Amino acid sequence: MQNFKITVQYDGTNYHGWQIQLNGRTIQGELTRVLSMLDHRPVTVHGAGRTDAGVHAEGQIASFLLARPFETRELRDAINGNLDRDIRVVAVERVADEFNARLSAKQKTYRYRIWTADVVSPFVYRYVHAYRGSLDLEEMRCAATALVGAHDFSAFTVADSEIQDRVRRLFRLDIEDATNEILILAEADGFLRYMVRTIVGTLIEVGRGKRTAAGVGDIFENRNRSKAGPSAPANGLTLVRVDY
Amino acid sequence: MQNFKITVQYDGTNYHGWQIQLNGRTIQGELTRVLSMLDHRPVTVHGAGRTDAGVHAEGQIASFLLARPFETRELRDAINGNLDRDIRVVAVERVADEFNARLSAKQKTYRYRIWTADVVSPFVYRYVHAYRGSLDLEEMRCAATALVGAHDFSAFTVADSEIQDRVRRLFRLDIEDATNEILILAEADGFLRYMVRTIVGTLIEVGRGKRTAAGVGDIFENRNRSKAGPSAPANGLTLVRVDY
Repeated sequence: MQNFKITVQYDGTNYHGWQIQLNGRTIQGELTRVLSMLDHRPVTVHGAGRTDAGVHAEGQIASFLLARPFETRELRDAINGNLDRDIRVVAVERVADEFNARLSAKQKTYRYRIWTADVVSPFVYRYVHAYRGSLDLEEMRCAATALVGAHDFSAFTVADSEIQDRVRRLFRLDIEDATNEILILAEADGFLRYMVRTIVGTLIEVGRGKRTAAGVGDIFENRNRSKAGPSAPANGLTLVRVDY
Repeated sequence: MQNFKITVQYDGTNYHGWQIQLNGRTIQGELTRVLSMLDHRPVTVHGAGRTDAGVHAEGQIASFLLARPFETRELRDAINGNLDRDIRVVAVERVADEFNARLSAKQKTYRYRIWTADVVSPFVYRYVHAYRGSLDLEEMRCAATALVGAHDFSAFTVADSEIQDRVRRLFRLDIEDATNEILILAEADGFLRYMVRTIVGTLIEVGRGKRTAAGVGDIFENRNRSKAGPSAPANGLTLVRVDY
């Protein structure tokens, strides 16, 4: 058996997220189908980030063991040849048996795009959340600094999440003013479900003056989901990279 | 009546081109439907470039007369509110009655994207023609110089075209080496049907060594379509801008 690590890009628009489901097309489901077919046996695909329905990836990482021998380029082309064009394996590496895309991940980077121009270009609407109205970037940046660091992010995830340890270390939460849009870059040792989108939704509330930057640090107290803002829409979010 | 000039962007993937048809969704058809509804009467929409099925636009120009009074922003939002997100009006201007988007056009610029990297990103596949193999850019540039200028481009259009005067002045035909792709920029006082795509198909044949750059100038002789290369696929082509 050989363990492989692949880098995957996808436009998540037409998928029910990463995680395999009985009904509904998912990224993990598509990769599992293709790899099991290529290896003539059921293959288990481990993914670094379980992106939600509609979320995209430029650098998702997955790993799996194959019984059949494959050259890396041959494997890349064989997988891509059996996938729709909105999912692409861009790199394949052989890795040690111990490597697991999910468990070995040290850091993940997500980018959220808030489109602020009046008209959303037909070439980007799948990848941005359109927000018409002005946002106070200085206030948003101020709020972001209160979120950076190690915190119990329970207030920024779903109430019924099965995960016990909800402490995550947010290394970076940058707000960039780009042409026609605001980019939010979040880098952490891990993210809870809906965490980036809830952070973004909260920052948007700060930007439009619905809440103050000064109050954002208090959201962590009581670990109550209702204290944070709404989750921003999935389509604005992209998993940019995973570090090991 | 007020004459309006609009700038339109579209992802042509799901349309049967610009020109209105009885069956099949087209860009002109969609604009005609929406404008006729807004103006409570049949509106005639003139377009600068009759892009083919699958061709995109970043700066298509259209013009039309409306009987009802509209503020330019109000009109922009009213049109966009009734279109799918893959067509967007990005600018609206009031213009003199004499202006006609098609007849007044002085120059058009098209861009063709040839994707040369091994894997086509899920974020660009709709907008590029994937060509796996090496292309000799120097030979292609040499061939391009033979095409620039005023020529009878009959050999680069459809044989049964109704247009009599097939002389067009190609101001510019640049070949740029970009990351993962080759960009071909074509600027002319007008383009015949399939002209850009046939130029690109011919340049690709030069790039792969199937024909010489030296022979490209001879294609104009006898105005015979069979002398030029095949038309490159529509999805790699974008109408970038129209000048008046």
